[in-house]
Amino acid sequence: MTTVLVVATGWDAQDWADRIAALLPGHRVLSAERDGSYSGPASDLTEVRYLLAWRPPQPLLDSLPNLAAIFSLGAGVDHLMSLRLPDVPVARIVDPDLTSRMAEYVVWQVLHHHRLGPAYVRQQKAHIWRELDQPAAAEITVGILGFGHLGERAAAALAPLGFRLRGWTRTARTHSVELFHGADGLQPFLAGTDILVSLLPLTPETRGLVDRRVLGALRRTGPLGGAIYINAGRGGTQVEADIVAALADGTLAGASIDVVSSEPLAPDSPLWDFDNVVVTPHAAASSEAHALAAQIAAQIAAHERGETLVNLVERRRGY
Amino acid sequence: MTTVLVVATGWDAQDWADRIAALLPGHRVLSAERDGSYSGPASDLTEVRYLLAWRPPQPLLDSLPNLAAIFSLGAGVDHLMSLRLPDVPVARIVDPDLTSRMAEYVVWQVLHHHRLGPAYVRQQKAHIWRELDQPAAAEITVGILGFGHLGERAAAALAPLGFRLRGWTRTARTHSVELFHGADGLQPFLAGTDILVSLLPLTPETRGLVDRRVLGALRRTGPLGGAIYINAGRGGTQVEADIVAALADGTLAGASIDVVSSEPLAPDSPLWDFDNVVVTPHAAASSEAHALAAQIAAQIAAHERGETLVNLVERRRGY
Repeated sequence: MTTVLVVATGWDAQDWADRIAALLPGHRVLSAERDGSYSGPASDLTEVRYLLAWRPPQPLLDSLPNLAAIFSLGAGVDHLMSLRLPDVPVARIVDPDLTSRMAEYVVWQVLHHHRLGPAYVRQQKAHIWRELDQPAAAEITVGILGFGHLGERAAAALAPLGFRLRGWTRTARTHSVELFHGADGLQPFLAGTDILVSLLPLTPETRGLVDRRVLGALRRTGPLGGAIYINAGRGGTQVEADIVAALADGTLAGASIDVVSSEPLAPDSPLWDFDNVVVTPHAAASSEAHALAAQIAAQIAAHERGETLVNLVERRRGY
Repeated sequence: MTTVLVVATGWDAQDWADRIAALLPGHRVLSAERDGSYSGPASDLTEVRYLLAWRPPQPLLDSLPNLAAIFSLGAGVDHLMSLRLPDVPVARIVDPDLTSRMAEYVVWQVLHHHRLGPAYVRQQKAHIWRELDQPAAAEITVGILGFGHLGERAAAALAPLGFRLRGWTRTARTHSVELFHGADGLQPFLAGTDILVSLLPLTPETRGLVDRRVLGALRRTGPLGGAIYINAGRGGTQVEADIVAALADGTLAGASIDVVSSEPLAPDSPLWDFDNVVVTPHAAASSEAHALAAQIAAQIAAHERGETLVNLVERRRGY
């Protein structure tokens, strides 16, 4: 009987294990404790073929000699890439549901800033009924930093609304959306961007990438009266002190922060209190467990039939 | 020389007149005062062929013996239909820009409630970082009350996000979106709607239509914990005291109010202060004057070439 282990440090792995067990009859599905340790007999671990993991502890990883594949329980894989991993395929979640939710979040927050949400919230608080000059979507360029699978989907949701779009990628590629790439492409990408949407993965190259210099390079002469920064990717890609400074000095006219470098966001962070900043608790692409579980179960079943796994992480580049 | 008159009661008609004059060289373009009166010689009025009007005073309308057509300066025409109009065609604005803006507003507000915006705003104020259960768009039915040109466009913008959609119209028609119609269709339409988006025109039939009974008929068992009401149509179609009561007793879990029966919204209205209500100042589909002016100028030029006007109001039904 094939053994599957679920490790979801800080979360309830049993819930995941129950879902996977229901989807894969004839499999033994084990779950680790909330702290990531496994409390059953060590002999269980030697039988584990498939690992479903969110922030697995290194010692647990080191005790799985018969592992065949690892499935990340999140869209990001930086929680795995920082570890010493066994030499097995690592698959990420590319879930239509998760992708849709991310697109929803991006559209919601782009519209919130574009449609002058923060100003209207201020007016509502003061009981003021006064229409403000509203630019057209076609006057606004949304630049997607990290134009991968999620970025494409977000762009597809923004396009029908009439926004101008551009994207930035690590390496050159082509797409119907205008793309810039690499270190040389970053400055021209930013210079024509009014609303920056970051969907970057966290890698050694992207850590701290969104800093004062990047924020300062955004277009501030557009009709929104300043640049907007939306991060629905990974908190570690931004320098939060620089974001606070850019908001304080007007370099940024607004921001939506769904992720921070150390979550939860500290209660005394100045980010909470800007009235032109929306803070959400890493909720942009939260998925319902059942959709994700079905995808992973299907991958396990395919692998057992000898098929190739999909959505694999490229270990060398780190995502 | 053909004479055009612009009346924009409460607004600056001169701005419109300048735009139209620039677009129609060889025409004489007059403008009324902010109170809707005309301060030039009465002989000017006898020459007026085309009237661009927002809330024109009845006496002014009665002094235009050579009028050929009236162009409403807004998407709604209730400001005209309550008057005694000369027997000439009345054209409304069906402007792609205006239609896009309306779709933007509807998507923005549907996402705001769907993505638990009010709850996250409360958490942000309290510096609380806690992810909430997020339903999928496919679990939510958005019902568009008044499924005409604007409703179709809003539905087209919501569909790619995965929402279930339905519409209600006065008379039977067919569309890829499931439609209900007439008095008999209203109850079943409401019973399956989680988020009600009203884009109704204001007519004698729709005045006060959205009342306690209608709000109480919405589905409240959906994943949002209650029904949501969004009005981007006309304020006169709703009974505001009933909305306040429905919010107070939980019949409504949230609302977005862009229009009210008497604008501006009174400073002491309870609507301002609900933390699950978004109030915007009739800003859903504000258009840039230049786009609308170009459309009206094109219609005037076409009419002068002997072509038929488009986007005409059906006088009998009132919109």
